[in-house]
Amino acid sequence: MERNQAEELRALQDTLYFIGGKWRIPVINSLCNGNRRFREIERSIPGITTRMLSRELKEMELNKLVKRNVYDEMPVLVEYEPTEYCRTFGKIITEMINWGRKHRKFVLSAQ
Amino acid sequence: MERNQAEELRALQDTLYFIGGKWRIPVINSLCNGNRRFREIERSIPGITTRMLSRELKEMELNKLVKRNVYDEMPVLVEYEPTEYCRTFGKIITEMINWGRKHRKFVLSAQ
Repeated sequence: MERNQAEELRALQDTLYFIGGKWRIPVINSLCNGNRRFREIERSIPGITTRMLSRELKEMELNKLVKRNVYDEMPVLVEYEPTEYCRTFGKIITEMINWGRKHRKFVLSAQ
Repeated sequence: MERNQAEELRALQDTLYFIGGKWRIPVINSLCNGNRRFREIERSIPGITTRMLSRELKEMELNKLVKRNVYDEMPVLVEYEPTEYCRTFGKIITEMINWGRKHRKFVLSAQ
């Protein structure tokens, strides 16, 4: 029992660590929704600053969550593509969206 | 499509905001695993400080995630009980544990 709890907690904390701050999950969600260009992703997440998004995408590239494709056009076109790994967050994101919806209903009904 | 994405993102960000920092989810998990006394919860989460746990439990009490029961014994017994609301995080936590396990396997197999 004790050992199992410790193993569960370790897995949970690994995930929380990987999710990091408040922007990683919204950025993953935006990419999985089909947004590819920097400005598209930025516009899809109200409140994120250019600087935060830039930092997040760089870290995500290092962590193999996103692939940065540079197309030799004029002007140069840069697209961010979610990797398969990025898409493994799908279930967590779905459950978070479900929870947020129920929470909003609950709060509104309590007013 | 755009409107739906905005609604999803709002639900997602509500959840992320509610989850808050790195300790909320481990504390919820510990309570749902049956830990009730302060020291029990503290011992079940390596790395958490007494101060952080104390702050977390106070905030969780304000947010109706936990009920603080004081038993008139000698010495006074205090127990923290997860509310039904607290247990609504079950699916998110399960998915996070699953993700963390897969991630660990993936990292170990890549070495």
